[in-house]
Amino acid sequence: MSKTLLALKPFRPDQLTQLATQYPTLTVITPETLKPSDVDTINILYGYRQGTKRHSDLLNQLLASDSSQLQWIQSLSAGVDSLPFEALAAKHILVTTASGTHENSIAQNVLGYLLYFERGLQQAIQAQAQRHYGIDTTKVSNLDDKTILIFGTGHVGQKIAQIAAAFGMHVLGVSHSGRPKAGFETIATDQDYQPLLAKADYLVNIMPLTAETTHFFDKAFFDQLTTQPLFVNVGRGPSVDETALISALDKVQIKAAALDVFETEPLPLESPLWNYPNVLITPHTSGYVAHFKKAFFKIFEPNLAQFMKDGTLIRNQVDLSRRY
Amino acid sequence: MSKTLLALKPFRPDQLTQLATQYPTLTVITPETLKPSDVDTINILYGYRQGTKRHSDLLNQLLASDSSQLQWIQSLSAGVDSLPFEALAAKHILVTTASGTHENSIAQNVLGYLLYFERGLQQAIQAQAQRHYGIDTTKVSNLDDKTILIFGTGHVGQKIAQIAAAFGMHVLGVSHSGRPKAGFETIATDQDYQPLLAKADYLVNIMPLTAETTHFFDKAFFDQLTTQPLFVNVGRGPSVDETALISALDKVQIKAAALDVFETEPLPLESPLWNYPNVLITPHTSGYVAHFKKAFFKIFEPNLAQFMKDGTLIRNQVDLSRRY
Repeated sequence: MSKTLLALKPFRPDQLTQLATQYPTLTVITPETLKPSDVDTINILYGYRQGTKRHSDLLNQLLASDSSQLQWIQSLSAGVDSLPFEALAAKHILVTTASGTHENSIAQNVLGYLLYFERGLQQAIQAQAQRHYGIDTTKVSNLDDKTILIFGTGHVGQKIAQIAAAFGMHVLGVSHSGRPKAGFETIATDQDYQPLLAKADYLVNIMPLTAETTHFFDKAFFDQLTTQPLFVNVGRGPSVDETALISALDKVQIKAAALDVFETEPLPLESPLWNYPNVLITPHTSGYVAHFKKAFFKIFEPNLAQFMKDGTLIRNQVDLSRRY
Repeated sequence: MSKTLLALKPFRPDQLTQLATQYPTLTVITPETLKPSDVDTINILYGYRQGTKRHSDLLNQLLASDSSQLQWIQSLSAGVDSLPFEALAAKHILVTTASGTHENSIAQNVLGYLLYFERGLQQAIQAQAQRHYGIDTTKVSNLDDKTILIFGTGHVGQKIAQIAAAFGMHVLGVSHSGRPKAGFETIATDQDYQPLLAKADYLVNIMPLTAETTHFFDKAFFDQLTTQPLFVNVGRGPSVDETALISALDKVQIKAAALDVFETEPLPLESPLWNYPNVLITPHTSGYVAHFKKAFFKIFEPNLAQFMKDGTLIRNQVDLSRRY
């Protein structure tokens, strides 16, 4: 059956060739050539980016139209938390994430943060700026035999777990269901994880943003900590109450933090976080992939093959009621 | 048979208890309590540190004495390159290294360096200092599918290889013999490694310092490079001709360097290396182990058990003719 795809994220030339060859009944259109009369022919939105007004305006227009043929939205990101979930569910529109595209990148950033703080690189960089040859080695440590507690045990959490294990770390996890996943010694639910905190040297958030995970890391959370772990957020900014985080830094409830996401992005100029010597800020780049178009297409293409056959999908589909 | 050990590196109290219990015929003496009349009773030097005058003076005294009972030197470091090898060989004195103590630390530093440069952490740290939220993501890259070429395939090289593979890297090696080792796709000899250079994104030196490896990384070496790899030295400083390295940086034959060791240590104030924005300097701390005494004893103890039985050793013994 013939389908029309709007490429909100452009394809590479070789990808267009592959699509034309493998899917002769698929028409690829682009925002630049989109005529108002074409809008209702769109079946697939490829590369939808939540938070981009041009994209959400188009989606709202499609959802408002009775003659819209929209069937499937391929999100550009691994997390989707600000979509019109109810309207999409009511119209039985499928949503897939880019989950799997970013997992290597995010896992590598997390290990980069840990090594930066633990292996004395932060100290060395500051010493180098002063032409000083020497660091306080009593503050240098190893990752092996340390314990990492990962909040979120999906694709990315599992990739972090896998690499952490290669470094000789003990890997614990927290998820909504607490279901066992490969690479974790123990997984607790988001209700009964507290006993794991006392074992953790590193806390890493990679949970999706939902009602339950909004401000999950709040004052009550930080007040439970006794081991001064390093805190890493590569999930979503609003999962952390930044006022509580700053207070945890002031009270040394955590020894340092590496933050890639923030309650407000870009991080406002007046945020106190900029100035903490034991806070490392990366500008929402942990998931950055050098060959993104290639990696993204690799996630999308098996779903397209299935979709062209029978209108179903085989991976990365969002449960619109759970919202992830 | 009763033996006397001089603890140049102090034991932990629990280690002294273990030694007293397991080896009742072993006498442990310390530099503080060492009487001139005791010197010739020493059988074992524990924790000998090359380059420490107090240690080399004592060793020279022992080597000069006809009544010395010295049988075994346990070096504090994994590399031994400035020992009186010929005199030791003439007296049949055994030498063991601390190889195995530092491998996790060094491997972790190497990965820390790669992630610092590749995952945009260097950029992010500079941006943070300016309260600037943003980095040039075209310069951010991943380690997966990259190729690491490790010069030196001993314990440390193998540990680097193992962790690099966990990140999805291709792992190539160079050693004197070219003998296959676990974790390497290919190992070339130090004579025929040149074809591997064109594949390498990262070059890591962890070779022992010998006549052959002194100034191994010289102008002719860097002139062969075509792929602008990242260069890492966690081996020995004199393996690199620093004048050639600086020229390679100026000519962008390498895109960056992470250096833990130097021709002269501490690195002199006037070295141009301090100022290169794409050079990361760590002050010979890549091998630093948080619980060194524990890790060092773990390497030593199985050898002691064997030595007390029959005067032989089971691991880490230096071939005094090869000098490593």
